[in-house]
Amino acid sequence: MLTTVYIIAITAEAMSGALSAGRRQMDMFGVVLIAFITALGGGTVRDVLLGNFPVNWTQHPPYIYLTMLAGLLTVLLARYMHHLQQVFLVLDALGLIAFTIIGCNVALELDYGLPVVVMSGVITGIFGGILRDILCNQTPQVLQKELYASVSILVAALYLILVHFNVSHDLTLLAAFSS
Amino acid sequence: MLTTVYIIAITAEAMSGALSAGRRQMDMFGVVLIAFITALGGGTVRDVLLGNFPVNWTQHPPYIYLTMLAGLLTVLLARYMHHLQQVFLVLDALGLIAFTIIGCNVALELDYGLPVVVMSGVITGIFGGILRDILCNQTPQVLQKELYASVSILVAALYLILVHFNVSHDLTLLAAFSS
Amino acid sequence: MLTTVYIIAITAEAMSGALSAGRRQMDMFGVVLIAFITALGGGTVRDVLLGNFPVNWTQHPPYIYLTMLAGLLTVLLARYMHHLQQVFLVLDALGLIAFTIIGCNVALELDYGLPVVVMSGVITGIFGGILRDILCNQTPQVLQKELYASVSILVAALYLILVHFNVSHDLTLLAAFSS
Repeated sequence: MLTTVYIIAITAEAMSGALSAGRRQMDMFGVVLIAFITALGGGTVRDVLLGNFPVNWTQHPPYIYLTMLAGLLTVLLARYMHHLQQVFLVLDALGLIAFTIIGCNVALELDYGLPVVVMSGVITGIFGGILRDILCNQTPQVLQKELYASVSILVAALYLILVHFNVSHDLTLLAAFSS
Repeated sequence: MLTTVYIIAITAEAMSGALSAGRRQMDMFGVVLIAFITALGGGTVRDVLLGNFPVNWTQHPPYIYLTMLAGLLTVLLARYMHHLQQVFLVLDALGLIAFTIIGCNVALELDYGLPVVVMSGVITGIFGGILRDILCNQTPQVLQKELYASVSILVAALYLILVHFNVSHDLTLLAAFSS
Repeated sequence: MLTTVYIIAITAEAMSGALSAGRRQMDMFGVVLIAFITALGGGTVRDVLLGNFPVNWTQHPPYIYLTMLAGLLTVLLARYMHHLQQVFLVLDALGLIAFTIIGCNVALELDYGLPVVVMSGVITGIFGGILRDILCNQTPQVLQKELYASVSILVAALYLILVHFNVSHDLTLLAAFSS
């Protein structure tokens, strides 16, 4: 189930990246690169910081194609995308939760300490957006809007509590998603 | 002694990061993240570039808490901080020197060549501030004001000369600090 | 032959970085650092992403000195550099091609999959310029001007086709350069 949500999440993130890049008059290549970095940049920063090589996406070509294609399609259909803002908000929230849980899991499996596990979750959740904003020469939005980061931290905390009490994996994920 | 100075240094750097973030209307999370990155980002960039995993702060939770707490307190007390500018300048200089020496040491112990050792010191000294400025969407100050980087390079050079002549470790540190 | 072109390429990239930094009123240290990062940053990002430690330039001090010196000389001679714009364009194109081929090679030798090999080539080709623009607080040019990235992608594709058909190494390079 987490994989399904992850795939929806990176698609949504890629589209948000492409919209951002489109607004900055970037060309096709810029749009595709920023879509890719917005979607997979958080996980990349996490893997590099934790020394978790090979970096995840290098072993999953479909994720590379998916995010680039999603970015490309988004720009082509940009004028219709504005009607979908509500959908985007929901996908974005789902994505943030999925990224955070995955990030916590990666650090847990590498036996990092608890604060690093939480930070790994938050970094996976928010750094794609931070890299997108840096490349678009903007102050990162996540640093100026409380909600986004708070959700990620809460999800990480909740997830770790559930893991600690040995709740079964699927139930844990369910709880995290209904939070 | 170097550890003591290091702890003072990351605290001072975290406060400088928080003040910078506060000026950019960031929320609490943004302030805490930028405090953390300003204080520990230089060492992180160094560890990643040198392939020195696990990255230092992931093994030292107290450093994580300390820098985040320092950032938080700084924003709460921001209006009183302006009276302490002189103190900050001294702490900042101390921090730069401590970071540079630590950075040189890390590269020396990994058997890197001399130019890489010097660059490791300088990177540790200045990259926290560079990352802070990038996240605040400013041109990095250290690239526009001679003094800061020059001090770091001088400290690295002086330190290496002393190490080369087998001066005892404590004496070396003392000399570096009185430079 | 690739080494010769590589040395010309990093020199040209260092000069382009220094000119960019000079325009932003940076001091000597800023110019030298940005020259270094523009020239060797693409390869550094590639090595870190692929977990290819030690990072290439840390094992080649002459590359460090060369790029820094080129940056320094460029600023001192900045007023005469404007007459050389045509030369720069040619060197820049040569550099892009050399960086792309080298980046593909590194990923091939580490047994990464084909899409990662192409991305490794493109990242090596363009990330030096992206880092330069981020440090100069500009929106990365390569994301706004089609040509540059397209050339890099085409070179990577052409190179891989030639490698696939077992064309001898020197001939492959020759073909890539005459593209």
